[in-house]
Amino acid sequence: MVKLVLLRHGQSTANEANIYTGWSDMPLTQYGCQQAREAGRKILQNNLQFTQVHTSVLVRAIKTANLVMQESKQLYLPISKTWRLNERHYGALRGLNKDFTKKKYGEKQVALWRRSFDAKPPLLDHPIMQRRYEKIPYDVLPVGESLRDASERILPYWVEKIAPQLIAGNNQLIVAHGSTLRALIKYIEKISDENIDGVEVANAQPIVYTLNKKLEVIDKKVL
Amino acid sequence: MVKLVLLRHGQSTANEANIYTGWSDMPLTQYGCQQAREAGRKILQNNLQFTQVHTSVLVRAIKTANLVMQESKQLYLPISKTWRLNERHYGALRGLNKDFTKKKYGEKQVALWRRSFDAKPPLLDHPIMQRRYEKIPYDVLPVGESLRDASERILPYWVEKIAPQLIAGNNQLIVAHGSTLRALIKYIEKISDENIDGVEVANAQPIVYTLNKKLEVIDKKVL
Repeated sequence: MVKLVLLRHGQSTANEANIYTGWSDMPLTQYGCQQAREAGRKILQNNLQFTQVHTSVLVRAIKTANLVMQESKQLYLPISKTWRLNERHYGALRGLNKDFTKKKYGEKQVALWRRSFDAKPPLLDHPIMQRRYEKIPYDVLPVGESLRDASERILPYWVEKIAPQLIAGNNQLIVAHGSTLRALIKYIEKISDENIDGVEVANAQPIVYTLNKKLEVIDKKVL
Repeated sequence: MVKLVLLRHGQSTANEANIYTGWSDMPLTQYGCQQAREAGRKILQNNLQFTQVHTSVLVRAIKTANLVMQESKQLYLPISKTWRLNERHYGALRGLNKDFTKKKYGEKQVALWRRSFDAKPPLLDHPIMQRRYEKIPYDVLPVGESLRDASERILPYWVEKIAPQLIAGNNQLIVAHGSTLRALIKYIEKISDENIDGVEVANAQPIVYTLNKKLEVIDKKVL
């Protein structure tokens, strides 16, 4: 039996302003930092010890991970930061207010973009070029993703870096984003494409899975 | 030409209380956090960009490294945490007040312990057993180190993990401790065993080396 904990970052300035964020690098709010510390204390109280922490290359997730490690007295743990755990890329919706988007495109279209597995947002003309992405082949960098697209770029990391550790009996912590955690939950719990629209992930609430050697879910609880 | 930046952690509660720390895991003070942020801003202002950050498994160094990465807008960088960059192990002096130690052992002995290359502190009976050290062979874990001992456990990490990156032209940041940085400075600047006692490293002041392909020092400045 091994533990896998999934954690969405604390509240970001974009969450607060009701804006589509995706790969934009919005920081945590003060409240978001408090939420992250509280999540760390819950992890400490539940005596959850990890061998490795995995997060994205976006500051809201990294900062949350660092605060959780600090409060749970595991700041010494190795942390791996990967673009594969970044939030779903929201293409041309990035930076737009969610209510504004509903007025412009209609509630139905927005609901599809947000909740269906296959709907892609309007795409950007070219990828976001930043130093942190410079080692990634240009044609691999997304310009807008469906949840399926996001899922497909996460899974190679799961297969190569997370699953082998879990199979070896090493508890793992993943600190990531709303949509990428939905994609992981869908995979782990074998949820159908149709039913994934009902899954929501709240900020900074640790989701604790107990898994067997086949990585089947034996128990799940939210702290 | 490549840049190597050495940085000692900000003020810790042990620095403040004038206590020998070594491998004890004392946190930063509020002032120490401010110092770390200020070091990060200097690194940003000097446009120093790294490909990798190296630090110890002690919270005062890790927290300093995270604050520096945050303030210099490089929180996405990979960070490697290793016991090989831990502070020199102060053996049975660990936790003792420095003035008390002078009264007990005499100023001359204390000066030898603190500044000479070869003097070992009184040793512990057995190593500190903590989860973060559980993968290290028992007989390798120190019970008290001279500066030479500390230097010898740092150098394999330098040779395997830092030097190859510098030779490849990738700027590196090392966030570590007073004595282990003295050991690194001795090695990098080829300072003799006799002359190392004059080298002091202040909290949270970035030391910027410019090195050539042979890792010879072309320039050194303190920010």
